[in-house]
Amino acid sequence: MQPIIEGKPLLGATYLGEERTRFLVWAPFRQQVEVHLVAPEERIVAMDAVGGGYFRAVIDGVEPGAKYLYRLDGDVERPDPASRLQPESVHGPSAVVARDMDWESPPFGGLPLRDYVIYELHVGTFTEEGTFDAAIEKLDHLVQLGVTAVEVMPVAEFPGHRNWGYDGVHPFAVETSYGGPQSLKSFIRACHERDLAVVLDVVYNHLGPEGNYLHDYGPYFTDKYQTPWGMAVNFDGDGSDEVRRYFLQNAAQWIDEFHVDALRLDAVHAIYDDTPLTFLEELRIMVAERERRHNRRIHLIAETHANDPRLVASPERGGIGMDSHWSDDFHHAVHTLITGEEQDYYCDYGSLEHLTRCLRDGYSYTGQHSKFRGRRHGLPPRGIRGERFVVCVQNHDQVGNRPQGRRLSELASFEQQKLAACALLCSPFVPLLFMGEEYGELARFPYFISHGDPDLVEAVREGRRAEFPSLTAGEEPPDPASEETFRSAKLDWSRPHQTPHSRLLALYRELIRLRKNLEPLRQLRREQSEVSSFADARALAIR
Amino acid sequence: MQPIIEGKPLLGATYLGEERTRFLVWAPFRQQVEVHLVAPEERIVAMDAVGGGYFRAVIDGVEPGAKYLYRLDGDVERPDPASRLQPESVHGPSAVVARDMDWESPPFGGLPLRDYVIYELHVGTFTEEGTFDAAIEKLDHLVQLGVTAVEVMPVAEFPGHRNWGYDGVHPFAVETSYGGPQSLKSFIRACHERDLAVVLDVVYNHLGPEGNYLHDYGPYFTDKYQTPWGMAVNFDGDGSDEVRRYFLQNAAQWIDEFHVDALRLDAVHAIYDDTPLTFLEELRIMVAERERRHNRRIHLIAETHANDPRLVASPERGGIGMDSHWSDDFHHAVHTLITGEEQDYYCDYGSLEHLTRCLRDGYSYTGQHSKFRGRRHGLPPRGIRGERFVVCVQNHDQVGNRPQGRRLSELASFEQQKLAACALLCSPFVPLLFMGEEYGELARFPYFISHGDPDLVEAVREGRRAEFPSLTAGEEPPDPASEETFRSAKLDWSRPHQTPHSRLLALYRELIRLRKNLEPLRQLRREQSEVSSFADARALAIR
Repeated sequence: MQPIIEGKPLLGATYLGEERTRFLVWAPFRQQVEVHLVAPEERIVAMDAVGGGYFRAVIDGVEPGAKYLYRLDGDVERPDPASRLQPESVHGPSAVVARDMDWESPPFGGLPLRDYVIYELHVGTFTEEGTFDAAIEKLDHLVQLGVTAVEVMPVAEFPGHRNWGYDGVHPFAVETSYGGPQSLKSFIRACHERDLAVVLDVVYNHLGPEGNYLHDYGPYFTDKYQTPWGMAVNFDGDGSDEVRRYFLQNAAQWIDEFHVDALRLDAVHAIYDDTPLTFLEELRIMVAERERRHNRRIHLIAETHANDPRLVASPERGGIGMDSHWSDDFHHAVHTLITGEEQDYYCDYGSLEHLTRCLRDGYSYTGQHSKFRGRRHGLPPRGIRGERFVVCVQNHDQVGNRPQGRRLSELASFEQQKLAACALLCSPFVPLLFMGEEYGELARFPYFISHGDPDLVEAVREGRRAEFPSLTAGEEPPDPASEETFRSAKLDWSRPHQTPHSRLLALYRELIRLRKNLEPLRQLRREQSEVSSFADARALAIR
Repeated sequence: MQPIIEGKPLLGATYLGEERTRFLVWAPFRQQVEVHLVAPEERIVAMDAVGGGYFRAVIDGVEPGAKYLYRLDGDVERPDPASRLQPESVHGPSAVVARDMDWESPPFGGLPLRDYVIYELHVGTFTEEGTFDAAIEKLDHLVQLGVTAVEVMPVAEFPGHRNWGYDGVHPFAVETSYGGPQSLKSFIRACHERDLAVVLDVVYNHLGPEGNYLHDYGPYFTDKYQTPWGMAVNFDGDGSDEVRRYFLQNAAQWIDEFHVDALRLDAVHAIYDDTPLTFLEELRIMVAERERRHNRRIHLIAETHANDPRLVASPERGGIGMDSHWSDDFHHAVHTLITGEEQDYYCDYGSLEHLTRCLRDGYSYTGQHSKFRGRRHGLPPRGIRGERFVVCVQNHDQVGNRPQGRRLSELASFEQQKLAACALLCSPFVPLLFMGEEYGELARFPYFISHGDPDLVEAVREGRRAEFPSLTAGEEPPDPASEETFRSAKLDWSRPHQTPHSRLLALYRELIRLRKNLEPLRQLRREQSEVSSFADARALAIR
């Protein structure tokens, strides 16, 4: 079966050249849709209903830079669901952006997954300026560190100028405050020039709570399933083919036009889909086709806490066929051994045996009873290679989803940080570092937002307080809506040069160098390695 | 992984002999549970909390026939979730019933699926008396007809005395008005004496709306998913291992103690479960173990409208491994060709091509767009043998879920009924007949209930009216709560002897005889048969 997008025209505004732009939108809830051009000169142009709930118009005299809204049934005006730029953030008009597919980009064929050493960064806090352009300046630091892939937290336009990125509501638009689509391309070019692969974090399981106007257009959501973020995206109900087309075209945009090397799919356990050919499988088929077409390696990496080997099993074995997936157990096992914490999901970890099992089996939980979940958890990932697991000792979630956003640098001794680095970089899995981890950054990474809706802001504040009942005794979490909270999360680039940070950085560099050069560490032959633990000595050996 | 029930004691009241009975209940919502014996003499006995939310008591002086309720936290009294008999229907006390595993049953090793010709019957309307005992009297008719398996619509205790069975709320208790557990055993013995396999219809996706007290005991349900019948059964959340244990023990009861040969799993598309080892897979593992233990064939047949080959694909190919599943398309294709109807889901059928595709591919929809569903539907079931599809031209749902419950005998001409019979019995799938179909029964099969709650009764009445907006113009559906509606559904056993009914019966007999004796019809080699359709002639050939 061909993915639903093949041969279909692109959604949104597509500049055709010669001052002509085509507009295409799926709006099955509407009888009539018009393009309301608001700049540079105002015009209203009726669109043709072209069947299946689609509306289309090709308009002369519209060039990149033009701003527009869709007028729905002559009444409400909304930004384009497939907007490629929101110059005035989420509520304002959309802008026409040329699709430059062949921008000057160095030849880069991607990397095999087993060579990935991922560095996760948040554009807004990675640098003082919080832009792609500023991030480019730091890439040489990453090259010296030795990581091979940069994972960029979500860049879809979100409300305000401060957000982790998971509140994005314009999946096709690159956040204006980061520099917009052209800056993202410059950043990707700069990465590829340095042989760094780029992993983009994309959110296909929900949209943010402010500025989500998809409800006005069509059945993008369903009340059949409840996610932690409200209604689930409609991947299996009436209209779901068109919803899939929307998200598949989104994935294709990053691959075809932005040349990203991998997509990190946020929380796939919240993508509910009971059809025989799931959205994730269709995405895999589409990506495989593009790997052939572009002749470069492209990977799909699923974030999940399901411990479900089927996600990465091959389609021939009935699997979904993702290239890799997260093994959260690794983080929890290391974190609890170091910190002794046992709140929330950490209650399921804490002994050397959990880390041993994870290193040996891929997960700590392969069917054992989980106290936190109140049921058995996981299945043994038999025959699944090491590169199909992504592990970390810190990431934005594990650091940020604590009341104060403390990193391991505050929670653990220097020696413990070194031990964590060794565990991570000697593991037979794909390691992921969280920006600043490599030199023991002390800046916290608390949760921050800048929504415009005061009620929503208050709800978020309340939510954060309520989230940490066991940890917040005497510790009020910082105000997520305050600019200061955001600013406090920025990396301090003077630290890598200071002791003891420089010593930790040297260790990370050396470990990554060893990992690249020592054949046993390079191969990720999970099932050929032997893991022994010595509980009395609190020691563990991999060979 | 071992299924969660292996090695675990049975839930409910288990008579241990020597006037001792063990009571075991899972009630994690409760601090304290007592057994309130109400007959033959009243007593209250405290249960021990034995961990994991379970409460247990072994009580002397309690024999089969004793009636009891559980008293929860010294407050509310409820029947046993695993009650094996509800002498006073759903709300009353439960009764202790001996587990006679080795009742006098003829040796019967089951049948291979490809030899199944299924006859679906509803105990309450199959005979005038509406009991298992009366149904036994009709088995010789089935033997003469030639069917090889009797599928019994659900027998779990339901409110009142009239119900299709899908409102059952005591999954372990055999409906008292049908004769209770001993009568079911007699019925199964009588079937096995005649070499008829017994398929039991079990409902694991919901409980009925009246008398469901499971909410008082523990998290049997979840609001994470919405089913057409309300909250979904909790097969994947906190406590779901114990919910699985409950339903797995239920399946085991029918197999181990009642010796049924197959389970027909109602509406598996409404069994939501996102764990790596789903409930259905655990059920399959359990049944496979019992096939070995009992040395007889036991089958799992999934009712579904998902057109999802994964349900019946082998575990080695990543499938769920059900032995067979429904292909509803067959019914719809035949029904629309004969009646020309196009309301509701019939809008997706109506041409010979739909039947041709179904005969050739297993489903009519293997990824084509479905107007009714508003999306593509199905996947090609490559390499799936014919016995893994169950098809019909009538069943309780297709007949009963019409405003008047009309059968094909009213909707089609005599010649058309003959044609439908040929299509059914020459198909390379497992055929299912609905009781009375074989002789063109004219009694309708409307929806009927006898709930005790007047508000619920009114809601059901309203619901039925609302369900058929396109068909009910001028046709008020019969009152589901009226006894007359129920009585009108009873088969008229004088008909098989009358013309033209006797002629249709003779045809069914002959077709079944041919099917059993002609090798090409016997083999169900779906992928070796060739299907040609001739639209102009309105003809179709299989060879």
